[in-house]
Amino acid sequence: MSKGEETRRAIVEQAVAMASRDGLAGVSIGRLADQLAMSKSGLFAHFKSKEELQDQVLQAVSERFIDRVVRPGLKAPRGAPRLRALAEGWLRWGTADAYPGGCPIFAAIAELDDAPDDRVRQRLVGMMRDWIDVLVTTCRQAIEAGHFRRDVDPVQWAHDLQGVQYAFYVARRLLRDPGAEKRWRRSLDALFERSSGDPQRQARA
Amino acid sequence: MSKGEETRRAIVEQAVAMASRDGLAGVSIGRLADQLAMSKSGLFAHFKSKEELQDQVLQAVSERFIDRVVRPGLKAPRGAPRLRALAEGWLRWGTADAYPGGCPIFAAIAELDDAPDDRVRQRLVGMMRDWIDVLVTTCRQAIEAGHFRRDVDPVQWAHDLQGVQYAFYVARRLLRDPGAEKRWRRSLDALFERSSGDPQRQARA
Repeated sequence: MSKGEETRRAIVEQAVAMASRDGLAGVSIGRLADQLAMSKSGLFAHFKSKEELQDQVLQAVSERFIDRVVRPGLKAPRGAPRLRALAEGWLRWGTADAYPGGCPIFAAIAELDDAPDDRVRQRLVGMMRDWIDVLVTTCRQAIEAGHFRRDVDPVQWAHDLQGVQYAFYVARRLLRDPGAEKRWRRSLDALFERSSGDPQRQARA
Repeated sequence: MSKGEETRRAIVEQAVAMASRDGLAGVSIGRLADQLAMSKSGLFAHFKSKEELQDQVLQAVSERFIDRVVRPGLKAPRGAPRLRALAEGWLRWGTADAYPGGCPIFAAIAELDDAPDDRVRQRLVGMMRDWIDVLVTTCRQAIEAGHFRRDVDPVQWAHDLQGVQYAFYVARRLLRDPGAEKRWRRSLDALFERSSGDPQRQARA
């Protein structure tokens, strides 16, 4: 890695921690320069604008999410076990200490929902859509494998899984509910159960 | 209303709009003074600190939520119909144009989840717990009325309803998914269906 690339990575890493605590709007080039003992102009040599830096922060978090959640999850057996592995990875992501102020994506959702449709917002929406696509495809495979019923709607399934994760995140991080993980597991089990292709269950329905 | 009280309300109103767009951290006494054509010291005469102002913002939003969601919802018939009315009110709240930058509570959740446990965070957690208590109590009444099965856990139910709402909010506001409300309705129906005390359903189980 070149010296320039190394510096660039160190800046992004620091900016990610800042965004985790203070949101993307809280990423300040002045404060970053202080923390890294660089001049502001030295920092600007790597990033032309605050927007570019925010975009890089989102990209760095996305790469980490792919490394820690998506890739390991996709190694699980196709279908329902893979969906469960992805959901478990997402849970661990939401409880990891990797980010001092919690998942920067969750913070960015609330921050950018009403923002103008610029490059940063588009990056976030693109990341979310990519992740939803992974869930939809995996859910479709679970139907094909007979793990899930034929009438399960994969887009609805991915939507409902998001709800399970967001409710967990709020219970765990805001409410500091010690039962948050137990609740998460019960919500997830209910989602799998009602999608289940278990033939006995289908006969009863 | 006294002149002082009127001014105070005008300040809070403006601060609520600011928090909706820029988060609680974005509530700036300097910008508020500008927007209201007041001096900063005039503004400080009403609010001793930024923290007090943020606290008042949350209180004002909470009062509005009670007026628009809780009170009308509680007028619906006890049990499942009342739960549905509360959920519908919450949906409308999340789609209302009352807040230029979306629900200030949703934004505050992401902002304060990792914040020190000060007065503002305690206010937010207290508001959320009060709302969850309304849902838990109403769910319990739905069980007593026989609308829901005896084995439904009201705390889990309120947790799952939160998931339904958060997933909707993200789909609608961040992803701008035109099908967000349809998905919300399907998630809600599934939640009611699996809680349903319909005796035929219980006999089958």
